[in-house]
Amino acid sequence: KPKQTTLHPTHRQVEQHPSTHTGSAHRSWTHSRFRPPAPRDGVEASFIYPSRPPLHSRRAHSFPRHCLLLRRDISMAAHVRGCRCSSLFLSSFFAGSVCFHSGCGFLVRFYYISLHMSAGGKKIVGVFYQAGEYADKNPDFVGCVEGALGIRDWLESNGHHYIVTDDKEGLNSELEKHIEDMHVLITTPFHPAYVTAERIKKAKNLELVLTAGIGSDHIDLLAAAAAGLTVAEVTGSNTVSVAEDQLMRILILLRNFLPGYQQVVKGEWNVAGIAHRAYDLEGKTVGTVGAGRIGRLLLQRLKPFNCNMLYHDRIRINPELEKEIGAKFEEDLDVMLPKCDVIVINTPLTEKTRGMFNKEKIAKMKKGVIIVNNARGAIMDTQAVADACSNGYIAGYGGDVWFPQPAPKDHPWRYMPNHAMTPHTSGTTIDAQLRYASGVKDMLDRYFKGEDFPVENYIVKEGELASQYK
Amino acid sequence: KPKQTTLHPTHRQVEQHPSTHTGSAHRSWTHSRFRPPAPRDGVEASFIYPSRPPLHSRRAHSFPRHCLLLRRDISMAAHVRGCRCSSLFLSSFFAGSVCFHSGCGFLVRFYYISLHMSAGGKKIVGVFYQAGEYADKNPDFVGCVEGALGIRDWLESNGHHYIVTDDKEGLNSELEKHIEDMHVLITTPFHPAYVTAERIKKAKNLELVLTAGIGSDHIDLLAAAAAGLTVAEVTGSNTVSVAEDQLMRILILLRNFLPGYQQVVKGEWNVAGIAHRAYDLEGKTVGTVGAGRIGRLLLQRLKPFNCNMLYHDRIRINPELEKEIGAKFEEDLDVMLPKCDVIVINTPLTEKTRGMFNKEKIAKMKKGVIIVNNARGAIMDTQAVADACSNGYIAGYGGDVWFPQPAPKDHPWRYMPNHAMTPHTSGTTIDAQLRYASGVKDMLDRYFKGEDFPVENYIVKEGELASQYK
Repeated sequence: KPKQTTLHPTHRQVEQHPSTHTGSAHRSWTHSRFRPPAPRDGVEASFIYPSRPPLHSRRAHSFPRHCLLLRRDISMAAHVRGCRCSSLFLSSFFAGSVCFHSGCGFLVRFYYISLHMSAGGKKIVGVFYQAGEYADKNPDFVGCVEGALGIRDWLESNGHHYIVTDDKEGLNSELEKHIEDMHVLITTPFHPAYVTAERIKKAKNLELVLTAGIGSDHIDLLAAAAAGLTVAEVTGSNTVSVAEDQLMRILILLRNFLPGYQQVVKGEWNVAGIAHRAYDLEGKTVGTVGAGRIGRLLLQRLKPFNCNMLYHDRIRINPELEKEIGAKFEEDLDVMLPKCDVIVINTPLTEKTRGMFNKEKIAKMKKGVIIVNNARGAIMDTQAVADACSNGYIAGYGGDVWFPQPAPKDHPWRYMPNHAMTPHTSGTTIDAQLRYASGVKDMLDRYFKGEDFPVENYIVKEGELASQYK
Repeated sequence: KPKQTTLHPTHRQVEQHPSTHTGSAHRSWTHSRFRPPAPRDGVEASFIYPSRPPLHSRRAHSFPRHCLLLRRDISMAAHVRGCRCSSLFLSSFFAGSVCFHSGCGFLVRFYYISLHMSAGGKKIVGVFYQAGEYADKNPDFVGCVEGALGIRDWLESNGHHYIVTDDKEGLNSELEKHIEDMHVLITTPFHPAYVTAERIKKAKNLELVLTAGIGSDHIDLLAAAAAGLTVAEVTGSNTVSVAEDQLMRILILLRNFLPGYQQVVKGEWNVAGIAHRAYDLEGKTVGTVGAGRIGRLLLQRLKPFNCNMLYHDRIRINPELEKEIGAKFEEDLDVMLPKCDVIVINTPLTEKTRGMFNKEKIAKMKKGVIIVNNARGAIMDTQAVADACSNGYIAGYGGDVWFPQPAPKDHPWRYMPNHAMTPHTSGTTIDAQLRYASGVKDMLDRYFKGEDFPVENYIVKEGELASQYK
């Protein structure tokens, strides 16, 4: 069970794993005159990367074992064994103890060399979003490149090679360089590495693709199945986070929050400009398209709001649970749509649901409908949604999912009226990060030991797709 | 029971009462050469006001009875009986039928004269926010000056004189002109008419002050009690609206929604900038200061979110209901404050609660606390809140209440970081407007008949203040 989070801590605890940077790091190293010994499994340095020392790096005990600090501007060549910089104290480097920086300044770089990769070590690549200036603001911020899911120490002390990057697009990306020999790829829906059939073909050593979060549609699942890969998610890790977010966006749109906020920021005050299209949630009809884990958590949270609740799904919830949840089953989606004041999308993105909400489907909804979609952007026809928002047929559209991601600057959903859009974040709260980091660690541990994963986590296993992706 | 609302209607139904304007109207009339007969109870014209004809005014049957259209630029003098404008058709004016405008254009003004004020008629003044361009956008938008709570027809057909305005400040305001002879004053918390001791002294005919909504702190209640006035609210009319809004703002602040929205609007994409301080509500400790009607509705809605819920109040909820709600009673506020990740203010503004959350009280809260206040702005020390937001002690502050209202352009809460502020709107959703309009009508009806109001509505009765204001 992941630890309880502390809200908005003021300073990073020194027990934390230090922030670790990557991306251009590998490249800048290889461009320098100094070249470290080529990584060889089980023998020598398996991973090398430089970064600016994090703020707290002066505390020796916050360093991982086997590390080396050197001043890059003095000399690169001689520093595998020690450092000439008089402001660095280096003790017993090869014995695995720590060295620390005791004063020298702005040009110090921090190099990390893991020397103990064992013979059975795996090459694991993680693709996460970059934190940059935010990396040091929260010790629990493990979901970013710098946080690296908080599993670096554990992986490296077990002899594995762990590379993290946010550089995922194109043939010159950092990810692409490791595709050929990586054994495990960890991705997230928030900064998706698109695992295409071409990449799968190129990845000769690849055995396992893990999604840190929920939703593996960025992976070509049929190609993965054909190649015999295992694909797994951390099912349940952020369902609560997403359900909370959906309810928040329903309220934001129904209650017309954003024009009021904008008035405040602009120095205005016009109650009528908000109130003429602000409504309570009470008494409205809310329908969820899909009532899986997230849909059900949403319905449970909606219950005390006294709405009329409907759900459409392939399978009806068992009568007892259905009664407890208090939502009515709608077998035919086209019958449900015109009844709803609010529609929430809770289906995975599959070949069946891709572009499902097009102009025709939207026309079946009630005029003035509010739509919340935290599932996947590509379930909607992008332009049809933008058009219906612009002409007022859709009274509000909110969500955090786009296609592609990151959303380009000219994505029409950025400019349409009455939206409540954000980048893809609802499933990556600090609480969710700790849960999916813990879930990834658990699955890696089982993978190293040759054990099965929790059955609900599998998306592709032994050539078979999970039922929701069929 | 108020009628069910329709979300985002596209066009106003013609059966609606027409929009009615006021404000500068009376003044421009009295400044013209023509003066209508002075209103005399039970005899003649009791109310006159001009406005631009609303968009739908060409439909004759949408006019109230006894109306007169005239072209102001032709002649003011001769138009008590008819109109010289050839583009106006006037039929049987004194028989109470309607006249309508059949084409003449931009300078037409619409004058309305009620001729049937009965001997027992009362002068009723309503102070609401002005809708302006939004007046015609929603037929259920009754809470504005133009909507006038939808009770004009009913009041005037019963022989009463009904004036509505948004012009409430200072000695030259429209409100001030009617203070001396009005019998009833209707106000709202959203655009509060401050009913001071001076105004009460001046209001020799005043018998009843009604708040369309909840919260009568804009009235000097001690002065009202001393003057023998009755003060009443529409208790319960917008409790659900406010409780929903509080939960929305808790989620907006905890989940760090607004920076993500701003990124989208600005063409940016930075998940880390949001995620490093985004949290789930689940597992957090939420405390409400005050657990009256709104506080309890909030706690009920919070329950499925699996928070730790605390409440502080003067009186403990009975054990059975407390168990059902699932919140723990905290007798000592200072003991509760440091336990809470989220604090919600749910007390009325009284002499005891004014400025209650000052620097010292905020320092007792947990660092990184989130505060939601939809109660009253003056419960907080304005500068103390702004300072604590600026230095990060408060991680987020959200609400829709300010002091004074409208909030001036330089109010520090407009500029402090991590706020989720709007103008005062949470209790004036369309649903709430229909409920409090209905409640005001019910109380006026009882007042005309000499009957008592629902007991929970009284704020001042027979010189006594309601318990929450003592």
